[in-house]
Amino acid sequence: MARTSFADVACSIARAADVVGDAWTLLVLRDVLAGIHRFDDLAGDLGLSRKVLAARLALLVEEGLLQRVRYSAHPPRHEYRPTAKAADLYPVLLALMAWGDRWYSPEPPVRLRHRCGQETVATVTCAQCGEPLTSEDTEELPGPGGRVGPGTAVLGPLLAARDWAHGA
Amino acid sequence: MARTSFADVACSIARAADVVGDAWTLLVLRDVLAGIHRFDDLAGDLGLSRKVLAARLALLVEEGLLQRVRYSAHPPRHEYRPTAKAADLYPVLLALMAWGDRWYSPEPPVRLRHRCGQETVATVTCAQCGEPLTSEDTEELPGPGGRVGPGTAVLGPLLAARDWAHGA
Repeated sequence: MARTSFADVACSIARAADVVGDAWTLLVLRDVLAGIHRFDDLAGDLGLSRKVLAARLALLVEEGLLQRVRYSAHPPRHEYRPTAKAADLYPVLLALMAWGDRWYSPEPPVRLRHRCGQETVATVTCAQCGEPLTSEDTEELPGPGGRVGPGTAVLGPLLAARDWAHGA
Repeated sequence: MARTSFADVACSIARAADVVGDAWTLLVLRDVLAGIHRFDDLAGDLGLSRKVLAARLALLVEEGLLQRVRYSAHPPRHEYRPTAKAADLYPVLLALMAWGDRWYSPEPPVRLRHRCGQETVATVTCAQCGEPLTSEDTEELPGPGGRVGPGTAVLGPLLAARDWAHGA
């Protein structure tokens, strides 16, 4: 994991990617959120090395996405349970899955049922009007936490040049 | 990039993560979708090595998320433009940004304006009823492309044991 840290980049995509921008980490979260909580089950499902799995689990515990809970005293055994922070990422995984379905899976490996009773597809929408967000219809503008620096050296000025009041 | 390939895992999260489950790749896509199209501008924005950037761009061209377009004949110069496949990933990046805002950014670095005229937050919703999808209210069930194998060795049987007809 000798990768540049993005924690200090003034961008929430960068800060999120710093933790979950890793394929194994995404699959560990997928599994834990689907109900696979034990080390051996996770290792068996994903077929990854125990060392890599242990590193990903440690990171996710440290970042507060998983909680390590003892489920047996003799012998001591622990399992990994998703926190509210991990559950809050679940819809992002569903949106990623929908993209993967559209571009990589001729037949969907998984179907989703929502509590409304219908089979569904995750759709990213505007919290205000409910319409799907698209790259053509959505504009990024500087926010109060914006800053020009590493990871936003060109992007920051580009966004700042946009006019918040008058549209694109 | 000597990582296990997830292209053959019967899971659209895995197949998507195989391509975009990488922090640098996510930030390159963020930039290109925000309007930064040239190699030097991308390198300058992100502060990553030219070698790493070239590898990420080559992957994204190969996977059909970016198109390499010549914009100057003398000297020959190219820029990278997002395809429809990349644009289709933009809402996923916005959903990831919203999660990053909630958990990592006390003040949002970026604000979003939708064409409806309002400042907004990306929300992952049910395509059928429009309500937000949550891990409690959404159930994964086996789909026609589902398969038990590497990456789904434990998950596959777990989903298959669920009853499509009768709910959780």
